[in-house]
This record gives sequence, structure tokens and C-alpha cells, in this order.
Amino acid sequence: MAALKRIGILTGGGDCPGLNAVIRAVAKSALAGGLEVVGIMDGYLGLIEDRMHPLSYEDVSNILTVGGTILGSSNKANPARYAVPDGRGGWTIRDVREEVVATCRRAGLDALVVIGGDGTMSGAHELVRRGLNLVGVPKTIDNDLCETEITFGHHTAVATASDALDKVHTTASSHHRVMVVELMGRYAGWLALHAGVASGADVILIPEIPFDLEKVAKTCADRRKVGKGFTIVAVGEGAKPVGGKQFVDHVVADSPDPIRLGGVGKFVAEQVEKLTGLDSRSIVLGHVQRGGTPTSFDRLLATRFGYHAFRLLQDGRFGRLVVQQKGEITSVLISDVAGKVRTVPGDYDAVLAARAIGTCFGD
Amino acid sequence: MAALKRIGILTGGGDCPGLNAVIRAVAKSALAGGLEVVGIMDGYLGLIEDRMHPLSYEDVSNILTVGGTILGSSNKANPARYAVPDGRGGWTIRDVREEVVATCRRAGLDALVVIGGDGTMSGAHELVRRGLNLVGVPKTIDNDLCETEITFGHHTAVATASDALDKVHTTASSHHRVMVVELMGRYAGWLALHAGVASGADVILIPEIPFDLEKVAKTCADRRKVGKGFTIVAVGEGAKPVGGKQFVDHVVADSPDPIRLGGVGKFVAEQVEKLTGLDSRSIVLGHVQRGGTPTSFDRLLATRFGYHAFRLLQDGRFGRLVVQQKGEITSVLISDVAGKVRTVPGDYDAVLAARAIGTCFGD
Amino acid sequence: MAALKRIGILTGGGDCPGLNAVIRAVAKSALAGGLEVVGIMDGYLGLIEDRMHPLSYEDVSNILTVGGTILGSSNKANPARYAVPDGRGGWTIRDVREEVVATCRRAGLDALVVIGGDGTMSGAHELVRRGLNLVGVPKTIDNDLCETEITFGHHTAVATASDALDKVHTTASSHHRVMVVELMGRYAGWLALHAGVASGADVILIPEIPFDLEKVAKTCADRRKVGKGFTIVAVGEGAKPVGGKQFVDHVVADSPDPIRLGGVGKFVAEQVEKLTGLDSRSIVLGHVQRGGTPTSFDRLLATRFGYHAFRLLQDGRFGRLVVQQKGEITSVLISDVAGKVRTVPGDYDAVLAARAIGTCFGD
Amino acid sequence: MAALKRIGILTGGGDCPGLNAVIRAVAKSALAGGLEVVGIMDGYLGLIEDRMHPLSYEDVSNILTVGGTILGSSNKANPARYAVPDGRGGWTIRDVREEVVATCRRAGLDALVVIGGDGTMSGAHELVRRGLNLVGVPKTIDNDLCETEITFGHHTAVATASDALDKVHTTASSHHRVMVVELMGRYAGWLALHAGVASGADVILIPEIPFDLEKVAKTCADRRKVGKGFTIVAVGEGAKPVGGKQFVDHVVADSPDPIRLGGVGKFVAEQVEKLTGLDSRSIVLGHVQRGGTPTSFDRLLATRFGYHAFRLLQDGRFGRLVVQQKGEITSVLISDVAGKVRTVPGDYDAVLAARAIGTCFGD
Repeated sequence: MAALKRIGILTGGGDCPGLNAVIRAVAKSALAGGLEVVGIMDGYLGLIEDRMHPLSYEDVSNILTVGGTILGSSNKANPARYAVPDGRGGWTIRDVREEVVATCRRAGLDALVVIGGDGTMSGAHELVRRGLNLVGVPKTIDNDLCETEITFGHHTAVATASDALDKVHTTASSHHRVMVVELMGRYAGWLALHAGVASGADVILIPEIPFDLEKVAKTCADRRKVGKGFTIVAVGEGAKPVGGKQFVDHVVADSPDPIRLGGVGKFVAEQVEKLTGLDSRSIVLGHVQRGGTPTSFDRLLATRFGYHAFRLLQDGRFGRLVVQQKGEITSVLISDVAGKVRTVPGDYDAVLAARAIGTCFGD
Repeated sequence: MAALKRIGILTGGGDCPGLNAVIRAVAKSALAGGLEVVGIMDGYLGLIEDRMHPLSYEDVSNILTVGGTILGSSNKANPARYAVPDGRGGWTIRDVREEVVATCRRAGLDALVVIGGDGTMSGAHELVRRGLNLVGVPKTIDNDLCETEITFGHHTAVATASDALDKVHTTASSHHRVMVVELMGRYAGWLALHAGVASGADVILIPEIPFDLEKVAKTCADRRKVGKGFTIVAVGEGAKPVGGKQFVDHVVADSPDPIRLGGVGKFVAEQVEKLTGLDSRSIVLGHVQRGGTPTSFDRLLATRFGYHAFRLLQDGRFGRLVVQQKGEITSVLISDVAGKVRTVPGDYDAVLAARAIGTCFGD
Repeated sequence: MAALKRIGILTGGGDCPGLNAVIRAVAKSALAGGLEVVGIMDGYLGLIEDRMHPLSYEDVSNILTVGGTILGSSNKANPARYAVPDGRGGWTIRDVREEVVATCRRAGLDALVVIGGDGTMSGAHELVRRGLNLVGVPKTIDNDLCETEITFGHHTAVATASDALDKVHTTASSHHRVMVVELMGRYAGWLALHAGVASGADVILIPEIPFDLEKVAKTCADRRKVGKGFTIVAVGEGAKPVGGKQFVDHVVADSPDPIRLGGVGKFVAEQVEKLTGLDSRSIVLGHVQRGGTPTSFDRLLATRFGYHAFRLLQDGRFGRLVVQQKGEITSVLISDVAGKVRTVPGDYDAVLAARAIGTCFGD
Repeated sequence: MAALKRIGILTGGGDCPGLNAVIRAVAKSALAGGLEVVGIMDGYLGLIEDRMHPLSYEDVSNILTVGGTILGSSNKANPARYAVPDGRGGWTIRDVREEVVATCRRAGLDALVVIGGDGTMSGAHELVRRGLNLVGVPKTIDNDLCETEITFGHHTAVATASDALDKVHTTASSHHRVMVVELMGRYAGWLALHAGVASGADVILIPEIPFDLEKVAKTCADRRKVGKGFTIVAVGEGAKPVGGKQFVDHVVADSPDPIRLGGVGKFVAEQVEKLTGLDSRSIVLGHVQRGGTPTSFDRLLATRFGYHAFRLLQDGRFGRLVVQQKGEITSVLISDVAGKVRTVPGDYDAVLAARAIGTCFGD
């Protein structure tokens, strides 16, 4: 294989703290190694629409602590199903994967670093199959990507969620309320679990453990009896009652990230109030969880992930995804992770620890 | 007047960062001055139900940085209209003001420090009229109490709201979105204004300035045209369209702090998306704004307010409320503030500054 | 007076959180008002060496939350005494004030906004006397500038200092130690006082109140006796013992901001340990107090100060300095403040409050 | 083995964020499991002096977010060498290990949880050898304990140090300075390395990599040449020049945590200024790094460590230390770690990543 001369970087999917730290690590390593680095704008959309520009050392300086991504993102663009106006007010869906590969070739990109979540990696896998030299870096605040123990951004989201739980704690305790905080996590409960344990939530409800409302209500009522006037409930948005379904009602059609009129948090607060008579409130923390300056933990992890991606490029180990396994940064085939979700195992020690200290999971 | 021997302290109304700092300053000053200090639990409810206990120096140590109130609060209890079960599953409304005064006398309380917002001060005014020796300390994160330039808690809420605006900024900018953040402030826009200016929001909507949706949408669209793909909108919950009404739909009956199914933030996001086609989202920050550790600014201010309350007690200047006027801590008659709201004047220099640097107020 | 067409902005003196917020407010207001804006680099040095460049709207976007100054600063350059190499390895001191005025004229600057502290304002006053159209914006984390109740940056420094005091509090309390934290403030004790009150320091030592070491030691020993194993001491760097001098030993010659080998904090810790036998430690917080993202309070205040400076320019009210008096943003003549220091009055209510709750000032 | 009925908990050594989270997890788990829990005050000192008291559920509530340790600590007490007054103004050193074991027996403690660092674990090992049922939980902000990849407290210290580096970054960049920040880490550079990478320090100096001052100075000078006026240096306190020794000068005799008059940070700043002529400053962050509220990451980790300690007790697996290996919480024999230090390997990927992006290690 000929030596690399020019590489491209893109970020796809939802926002995640640490994206810029990865971009910086990849770009600085590559520039120091004598490569040219090209930033592709707005995820796959930049490849489809041929929007890209060279990244200098200056461009990637002072971005380590900045949230978001300097390259922009798009969580709608999918090369396999790209929507173009049909000229009659509607849309035509086209497969532009071959064009994307051609664009890369034309731009002289010898290889691509793709930073994104599950959807972005599915797209990346398709490009790898079409012959593109590509390495992936996983990104998800939900921490639900297979084959990796941790992804950057997760602990920043946990910190933001814990901070919110800490804040409502003081209000709940002053007003003897049940306070329900709905956190992100449609398919996996890592964020609600980690933030709940870190802030000492009394009840933690996650998608992996269907909850019995009677048990949640009993926990709230029992705390009242022993003089604890308040209860803090951390609930992942994908949590559901035993035998029930996820709360994805009132979805705005076709939106990949739907605005919901009322989710599981509101439901739990209303039902607990009905069952116990206790004053109950809910808040939905929402997009705040995705944004902001990454914590020092995530800046460090993202820098290490970015550097490992560069090493994979250097070694010509394409088609691979950077992961952490057994505490070490390593890599797996992108094809091994695409389309799979990593959920919280019932015997994860943080679940057992939470149970041991009296946390209610509603089961 | 005989010297004071024993004083009581109570906190009423919604949560507010800095309550404990006031309690600590009043109690430590009084204890150092040789007085006995009694903590009354859960606002007026503690007076009605005779729940109080002595506060020692130890009880009020290490609470300066703690959010909430160690005395508990109740934003439902109003001595003029106290709801008691009627024995038939309903409620009877009773006027217990005389009983409350009698309870204070029986408990040997020579004077009372009442910390609370507008509602609590209306109640306090009634007790003053019935002969109780009482001084008030104003509390509102909304900063909308008359006769005082500032209240403790407000700048902590501004800090929390600014932090949320900063966080969604990174996501909005990465995804080229319009992001609407609904903040507290039903009658006055201080919080949305201050947080909006402090975080550089592009649009600020407050109750005092009815907004024209077309103008808000145009601002978003114009920003897109000059290459700014995103817009941050800070909106106070009481903001309303020109000629329209406040969004207090779907209120849970009889709740003093209603859970709302969708307020002005959601409305603005939906309408802007409709008018411009730009991807728009909204979040409601909610109770997070009331909680948490007070900022150092608020700990300092609350300590000064608490000390001034103690001085008023010492000097026998009852019926007065601690305020800040012209940059100095002083006091006014409680009767001068009860029932009045301080709104943002159109010529407040923070409004003018925001306009000068290009912020849209929708008018 | 002819209308302004082009204005310059410079920042002088030590770092201070909020400088960029002022620059942004001045520049955005001026650009929106149709003016050209020129950024002068590194304070007066940029005027002396003719280093300046136009500022666009883009240049001053996204700097609101950024610490430091995008224009750079220099706390050595003084137009009245500018040091130039004499070609023989030494330095010649020259008065370049006339040249500076000429540079402004040549660059077509109709007016100047000068943001800086006491030294910078002394220089500004000289330029005003030489006919330059100039308005000043005061900057000092020490809050010791005359004629203004508050300056931006101070409360960010207070927040940083309080945070450090909070952190050592946990260690001191776990290890039963006396912990002395030396804070900035050579001539005035505002920072040590405000941070000390905000974090509940047990002892606060400031330049305005010479301290008696025996009394400080007795406070530490007395706390031990009543079961409080620890004492937190907040000390301003300019604090001095009764009859003693300030600790400005071991100064590196000619440095405007000397590195000191051991100041009052270390002295107090050593002496208290000697007098009481209690384990005592000291830390010098240092430059951390000057840096970082401004708090929302300071971003708001700095924006209002910057806007007011622009208004003064617009109204042709040159030679004036933006200040806050009686809670309002207004202005005074620069000549009224130059060379004067505002110290903490003995009857400032924060001092009285601290005394009332048992804080020792060492007197 | 008979079932456990009563256990004791103690915390030894220097302060570390997360101690209370461990205490809470052990105590709540044990109380929920029907055990009695006894808190031993001030580390081994409480065992020597027989100061202990029962811990209730209430005692360990609301301590999760509190820094320090509610049990107090002592980093002087060593049962093998306990100093007692000899009655003639001096001290006698006694071996009180047998007495300590006897005290535990007399107090009816069936087992002990010892939370501490290397020194504390050496003591624990001795007690295990004397037949005490004991499990250890490792504690060190330095992260230099053998056999465990991570300890709670480290990432909180990294966050504090990164925050300080971020803050001086703005000042350094505004004033074109070299800013040296001395961080903790006498034997291992984990803290300086992790904080340096997380904050984008330009130079990182750690004990494991002796530094060449010329190279450090050249990095600073080269940055100046390419227009970067400033350089941030993160230096671990144990870093030393090639061929030189650690800077432990001016130690206060017999102190386990000596006050130093000037360490490696000051040395580096002075020498760089001498070699380059660049304005250089240093700060010593000091005890701030040990204190404060643990981050959510550390609260989670400490809770998991505490729970695992309880499980070891339950399973009768005494003499073991909780550790993390290959990403999993597990345990090793205490005898395997005592007296060993885990240093940063030269091929640790965070070092390689830092080198790749241009960080100077001075070698």
C-alpha cells in the first residue's frame, strides 16, 4: 500500500462532548506526520455535496475544550437513502454511496476518519465495503455501542445529569416532593443508571428493567413514613412499565429526534401522585445533556481515541473502529458493531451496588 | 420595648438558592447576641401546626453552601386560607391568622424573621397588622419583587440558565438548529433577560415585550443567510405574542406551580420551524433553576440580607423588609411591596445593550 | 463635532475575566451603528509599535465566554516611560505620548476605548490631556478602583477564590488543620473579604485591618476547644500585622507583578503553628484568580459597561470613565479616579455581618 | 466462619474526594444486610485511642457529594510507630499493633474496612498478619497504587488541575507568558499527565521522564517564533532535570507533607525565563487538588469500590484490597501492593498521544 498523503475527517449523528478533541488529536497527529488533513462539513452531507476544506494546525488549536463539532454534523444524511427534492414539491430517495466514494477519490482523500454513532457506523460500513480506506471512532453519550466499554461524551452527559439531579434534590427536600428527572437513553439505561448512582437517586428506572408502578409508589410512600419527605427518581427515556411499551407518543413525523409531548417522566410523576397523594413533579432534561465543554475525563479519552484512529490509519488497518476493551484502547471491525446495542446487564456491579444501598429499580 | 429573648425563623414559598445562608446569618448573629433561636418548620405550616425546634450554632454550621432550606418550606400554606379536611373527603378553608399569632406568643417568640416571596410577604403583612413583631427578607429567583434592586438566588438561577444556554449553543451550532430554551419568569423577564445577555442569546423574549413571531422567524432566517446556521432563543415562560395571552394551558387544577403540557417555548419552536423550515427544538429548563448551591455572589448577598434582618430586629424596627436600593442594603415597610410586581423597564440598560449588539426582542 | 467614523479598542494591564465581553459589546454596538472598529494589540504597546487591525462582526462573535483578551495586553507598556534598547545592551526610557497620539491620528481613529486598571487609566488621562477622544472602562479583579462600586471580573475572581476555600475546607476538616489561603489584593481587601464571607472562612485578614497574630492564634485554638478541629483563614496578599509591613519580600527586580518567595499566608500559617501547635498549611492561589471564563454576572456587567462606553462615544462625552454608582451604570471624569485606591471601609456591612456571625479579623 | 455482626470503617492518609462515597456504600450495604456499623475516628488514631461510634443510616445519608471524610483522618498515626509523650517534653515511639487488634476485639468488631493509600495499606497488612479480618479500599489522588488501573479521587484531582490550567491559559495567552503550574505527584506523573493532556498543555514534565531544560526552553521559544506568544507547562512535583534530583528542599522537619519553599515549578519558570528572556511565572496548586466535591465519575467509582468491599466482607475474603483490573472491579491480596508504586509507563498511549500532537516532555 502506498503511503497516505491526504486524509479526511467527518463527524456524524447527534452532538456529543469531545468531538472536537478527537478532531484535534487526529488532525494534529496527521499534520505532525506530514499528511494533509481535510475537514468534511456536516457529516456525510459534506461528502454528498462536496463541501470540505483543508484543516491547518491553527484551525484545530484551542478547540479541545469547545463543545460541539467545528465540522458541523447532520443526523439526517444517510448516503444509502439521500432525500433530494423531486422538483414537484416532494422528495426522491436516492442511493448516493457510489458518488460519495467517487467524491473522496476525486478529492484525493487516501483515507477517512469517521466519528459517529451507530447510524454513522452503519453508513461507514457500507463505504468500507465499497473500498474506501476508513477508520471509525465511536461517539454516543448513551454509551450503548457494542464492543466498547466506554465512549467519550458519556461521562460529560453523566456529569450534566448528576448536576441536575443534585439541584432538584435541594428543592425536593425543601418541599417534600417526589421529583422525577427524565434523562436520555432510549434503548439503554447507562446514563440514567450512572447519573442516578452518582447523585444518590432513590429510584432509578431504565429500559432494561421494566418497572412496577406500585413498587415505585411504595418506595416514595415508605420514605415519607421514615421521615424522608422527598424522593428523587432518575428515569431513562426508554424505561417502560412491566408489560407496557416505551413512551414515544406524539412524535413529530419523520423526525429522527422527535419532540415528544410527554414521556415516561411525566407519566411516572402523575401516577405516583395519584397512588400516594404526594406532591410530584417531573422535568425533561433534554438537549442540555448533549452539549457543553467536555469534562477533563472525556477530553483525555477523546484525545486517546483520536490518536488511536491515527495509528490505525498509519498502519493501514482500515475498516476498524476504535474501542476500549478491558481497560485498553484497541480496535474491532466496524462490521462487528453496526446495528447492535449494548444494554446494561442485570449483574453489572453498579446495579448491584445501587440495589445494595437501597435504590429502587421498580422491579 | 423589652429586649428580645427568643426569635423564630421561617422560610416560605418556592425554593431559592441562598435560603440557608440567610438562616445561618440571622441565627449566628442572634446566638452571638445572646438570643435563643427557634426554627419553624415548613413555612407558615409550622406555625399553624406548632412544629418548631431550637436552632443551635451547630445546626446552622456548614449550611452556607447547601441549596434548599434546612427548615423546609411550603408554598401552599396561607394562614388566611388554610385548608383542613372536612371529614367527608373534602376540604374546609379556615382563617387561622389569630391562631398563628397565638402560637408565636405561646412559644415565647418575641419576634419572627420571615424569608419568602410575594405571597409569603402578603401573609407576613397580615401578621404584622395583628401585632406580631416581624421582619421580612425577600426571596425570589425571578427578581420581580418591588422596592429591591436585587434578591439573593436570582444570580444563581441566571448562572444555571446561562449554563444551559451555553450547552445548547454547542449543539445548535453543530446541527444548524434553532434552539429555544424556556426559562422561569411568569410576570417579569429578569431571568430570561439576564441569562440571555450573559450567554449571548440571539433572541430574548420576555413578558414585558410582546413578540411578533414573524420578526423572530426573520431573525432566524437572516442568520442562516449570513452563514450563521443556528439561533439561540431565550424565552421567559410568561412571554406572549403581540395581542396574545400567556401560555398557561393544561394547568393541573389548584396547583400553585402547575405542570404544563407545553408552553411558550414549544410554541415558538414549532412556529419558527413552520415559518422558516429550519430545524427547531425547545427545552423547558424547569425546577433545575431553583435548586443547587448558591453562587458566591448569592452567598455573600444572602449573608448581608440576613445580617440586616437581625439588625432590624435588634433595633425594634418591625414590619420592615430588607431590600437593596441604590446599591445599599436598607429596608422598606412590608406593606409597601405586598402584591406588587417589579417588571423590566423598556429603558433598562441591559435591554438597550442587548438591542445595540443585535439581539432580537421580537418587537 | 464631526460624527465618528472609526474607533479603536485596547486592553491594558493584568488579565481580568470579562475583557472580551466588553470588547464584544463595544465592537458590536459600533459596527451596528455603522462605525469601523480597529483592535489595537497588546495595550499601549500596539499604539507605540503601530500594531492594529480591523475587527469584524465575526472577529468578536463567540468571545463572550472566553477568558483573557483577544487583543492581548501588556502591563509593562507605559507611553510616558517606554523602554527601548539603547544599542549597548541597556535600555533608554523615552516619553512617547506624543507619538502615540500621532499614531492614532494617522490611523484615522476618531476615538479610543481604553479598558484597563488604575495604571492604564493614568496613561489614558495623559492622552486625553493631549487631545485624544477617549473613554475608559475600568477593569480590576481587586475591585479597588475609585468612584465605582463594582468592576467586572471581581465576582469571577471571588467565585474562583471561594471555590478554592470550599475545597480546602474539606481537607482542613478531615485533617483538623489550620488552612491559610492567600488571595490577591495588595492594597484593598475586597477579594479576600468577599470570598471569605461567601465561603464561611473563620478568619479573614485584609490590608485595611492590621491583624494581631495572638488573636488569630486564639481563634484557631478556641475552635479546637469547642470541638471544631479546623480553621480556614482567607488572607489578602497585602494584609499585615499590627505595626508591621506588607510582605513584599524577595521581589524580582523591576517586575510589575513580582514573584514572591513567601508572603503573608505562609507567615500566618507558620506563626499560628508555632503559637498553637496546630498543624497549619498555606497555599497561594495566584494567577488562577485572574483567568477563566467570566461568570454570568460578569458577562452581563461587562456587556453593560461596554455598551455604556459606546454611548459615551456616540454622545461625544470623551475623557470619561464608565462606572457603577448607586446601582446604576454612569460615568465620571477619568481624572477623578487616576491614582486613587478604594479600600474596604470599616463599617461596610459585609464586614459587620462577618463580625456578627463570629468571623475573626485579627483585630 | 461465623457470620459477621459488627464491622468497623476507618479512613487513613491524606484527603481524597470520594472517601465519603465509599463510607456510605459500605455502611448502607452493611446496614441493609443487618450488620452493625461502627465509624472509627481519625484513621488508626481512633483504634489506638479507642474513639469510635455507631453509624446509622441517617449518619451516612447526604454525604455522597461531600468532600473529605466524615470519619476524619490522620496521616501521622502508624500503629507500628506511634509517638507518645515521654513526660520529659520528648516523644517515645511505641509499637501498638497488638493493642490495636485487641481494641477491635474488645469493641466486638468482626471485621474492618480500611480506606487509605499506600502507607495505610502497609499498616493494614500488619494487622491482617495479626489475625484481623480486614479488607482494604485504595485511595490516592496520585493514582500510583500498584495492581489497580484507577482509584477514586484521581479524576476529581485531574478536573481541578485541568480547570486551573484552563484558567492560567487565558492569562498566559493575553500576556504572552510562559506559565508553569506545579501539580501533585511526587513519585508518579499520572495527575500532571492526565491534566496536561486534558487541558492541552504544551509541555508536560513528570517524574518518570527526566527533563532537559534546554529542550523545554526551546519549545517555549519556538512557539513564540510561530506566533504563539505563550506556553503552558504542567509539571508534577516530583519531576526532575536529567541527572538531577527531586526538589524537596527546605522541608519542615518531620512533616509527612512538607511545606516547601520553592519546588520544581518555580525552578522551571526561572530557568526558562533566563534561557529565553520570555516572561515566565509559576504557581503551585497545592492542597486544592485534594479537596472538594467528587466528580460524578468518582462518586460512581467510589460507590462501586465500597460495594465490592462489602461483598468481600460478606464472602469472608479478608486480607484483600479492592482494585480495578482490565476494566473490572475485583480484588488482590493487600500484601501484593504494599510499598510498591505504579509509575507511568513510557508507552502509555496517553503519553504517545501527547507526543504525537506535539507536546514536549522535555526529553
